[in-house]
Amino acid sequence: VNIRKEREQWHMEHLVDTGRPIEQLETPCLLLDESRMMRNVTGLKQRLESLGVPLRPHLKTAKSIDVARRVINVPTGSATVSTLKEAEEFGAAGICDLLYAVGITPNKLDRVAAIRSSGINLSIVVDSPEGARAVAAKALATRDRIPALIEVDSDGHRAGIPIDDVQRLVAVGRALQDGGAELRGIMTHAGGSYDCCSAAQIEAFAEQERAVAVQSAAALRQAGLPVPVVSVGSTPTAFFARDLTGVTEVRAGTFVFFDLFMAGLGVCTHDDIALSVLATVVSHQRAKGWILVDAGWMALSRDRGTAKQSLDQGYGLACDSLGRPYQDLIMIETSQEQGILAIRPGSNASLPELPVGALVRILPNHACATSAQHDRYDVIGPDSNRVLAQWQTFRGW
Amino acid sequence: VNIRKEREQWHMEHLVDTGRPIEQLETPCLLLDESRMMRNVTGLKQRLESLGVPLRPHLKTAKSIDVARRVINVPTGSATVSTLKEAEEFGAAGICDLLYAVGITPNKLDRVAAIRSSGINLSIVVDSPEGARAVAAKALATRDRIPALIEVDSDGHRAGIPIDDVQRLVAVGRALQDGGAELRGIMTHAGGSYDCCSAAQIEAFAEQERAVAVQSAAALRQAGLPVPVVSVGSTPTAFFARDLTGVTEVRAGTFVFFDLFMAGLGVCTHDDIALSVLATVVSHQRAKGWILVDAGWMALSRDRGTAKQSLDQGYGLACDSLGRPYQDLIMIETSQEQGILAIRPGSNASLPELPVGALVRILPNHACATSAQHDRYDVIGPDSNRVLAQWQTFRGW
Repeated sequence: VNIRKEREQWHMEHLVDTGRPIEQLETPCLLLDESRMMRNVTGLKQRLESLGVPLRPHLKTAKSIDVARRVINVPTGSATVSTLKEAEEFGAAGICDLLYAVGITPNKLDRVAAIRSSGINLSIVVDSPEGARAVAAKALATRDRIPALIEVDSDGHRAGIPIDDVQRLVAVGRALQDGGAELRGIMTHAGGSYDCCSAAQIEAFAEQERAVAVQSAAALRQAGLPVPVVSVGSTPTAFFARDLTGVTEVRAGTFVFFDLFMAGLGVCTHDDIALSVLATVVSHQRAKGWILVDAGWMALSRDRGTAKQSLDQGYGLACDSLGRPYQDLIMIETSQEQGILAIRPGSNASLPELPVGALVRILPNHACATSAQHDRYDVIGPDSNRVLAQWQTFRGW
Repeated sequence: VNIRKEREQWHMEHLVDTGRPIEQLETPCLLLDESRMMRNVTGLKQRLESLGVPLRPHLKTAKSIDVARRVINVPTGSATVSTLKEAEEFGAAGICDLLYAVGITPNKLDRVAAIRSSGINLSIVVDSPEGARAVAAKALATRDRIPALIEVDSDGHRAGIPIDDVQRLVAVGRALQDGGAELRGIMTHAGGSYDCCSAAQIEAFAEQERAVAVQSAAALRQAGLPVPVVSVGSTPTAFFARDLTGVTEVRAGTFVFFDLFMAGLGVCTHDDIALSVLATVVSHQRAKGWILVDAGWMALSRDRGTAKQSLDQGYGLACDSLGRPYQDLIMIETSQEQGILAIRPGSNASLPELPVGALVRILPNHACATSAQHDRYDVIGPDSNRVLAQWQTFRGW
């Protein structure tokens, strides 16, 4: 019922406000450059095509059906989600082959069963015998061989079975397959690649991610278990992998929008970043070289991911209203609804003259975190100055 | 139209799911202990009553009409908001005396005028002559003397006219009052108190906040301008002020829920924190002493405010399902939908045995940031084990 209600409201709002110049938007709001987004999508798809592996895009970054439809062939395409709410929303929009790529908890299995019984081919993830037994028990109870992938740990940064624990890997595989569920395959995520400092390092991570997944698949097959899917991915490793032999699909999410963090890693340039927060100058603290704008951490998110990179971008890099970055003008501090722009410490750049009421655009550190703070994207074209459409997002679990 | 629609949905959802044990909630979700909240509210109100100054609570922390009704006498009470969306929502719920306490931008004045013409006594904030002239022009155009407070800077941490710039202060006052708007008074916010390390320091900040506001009011009065309101406040200074002579109202928001940051400042104890994120154990990395749970930065927020305090709480402090903290068990790392619990580095505490499926509650660093990540509060009573109500939140601008 809620889904229908929300959908109705979206269509209503789709008809509103398009065509007007961005100067008429109320700030803060989230701008999405559609042509940059499409360039990013085409770029990764072509890259993976040349490596012979399909993309299973992660839709958690955008949480938008309009974006999903531009990234995926509906209804034949496949996707990755991070919540069951996403599975319901994207499933209702016709994207029916979905991997919920976060380890399942027993209290979510009723909802998984309900989603699957609505016709969505949802697969889930486990990494423990206890988890696998709970999935198998639900599969038996619902007479539905719920497909599950086993998460393996390729870089020590999160969940997943360690590569040297073949016994546990096989035990989980057997608990699924012999217990009444379906062992769909292996998945891993090289999130550790986010801490890399060079292209060579990311390449090494990508190879490690591939190797661990392929070895785990081999160990399961040797134990007589089926492994149709070998799923790897993260935006950095998807862009730097040179060989994906043995891999059947690549997952990536952030690449759709890109962000300052990915630019800091060398995965994209600032010109590829499709997302920015539009803000208005509120006032100045001239003695301090500060420009105050009406976007704070609520509009940008609290993400400070670039703080650990060689170039700390604060809460974001400021651009003019057409999206051209000002040299070294970053958001150095935020309160809930206000941000302070200043020249990066140590830079010789001079503060631009931005009067009260001037518009700026802030490139975000982390696309997933910033998009989650907003209810919609104001979609702009390459000329940047008109709103072509408004695309709603959803959130929650 | 949207407001009505949302309200309908809230009432619908109010009737759902109450009375059931928290074990039946899907995780992650946000628990609100109503009795702790009411104790926090009563505590600050009594404190300010003894100082003879009324509270103008900041509703940005909760963004919930149900919470607002328990903090404010409707319709006689007054409140503070951080967005015009909040002004519309709380105004529609009968809270009609509202201060929008973030410097206004010219592109928001049409909406301010619309809100005021709907019968809401909304006042706004400026700190520049340009801003004041824009407000005055809108006041003239709408034949409505829009009331505005002048923000003064009491601690150098954000916006506001510096205390030594009496010329600018009076210029802004005159631009408002002589230009056709209404000079309502002075406001300041000692956000710098968040960086304090002792009760004595916070007391000093509170006195500085008071002194700057009162001096600024005196300077305006000396110039023949009216200053009926002298508004100060932040949760730390509200709790540590010893004297509020000359102040007419105190603003504070976080006190309603409190959080680990305020506990680290010494403003509250862990037992006062009314908000926690309920999460489920997904799996373990036993060799590393990690417990993985299904709440990551999406459920907790990216706020790492305690990182700069003497006791870094990571992304939050873990408690059992009844809210009793585990010794030194903190969320050391997060991905979007997963968190890693581990014993704080350097601690001798031992990792509790929490099986897959066990429930934990995570006390958040920053109540405003964590509540903003959720669509509702699951309200619990002092026994912690039953959901008494579900209160919807709203967001956006």
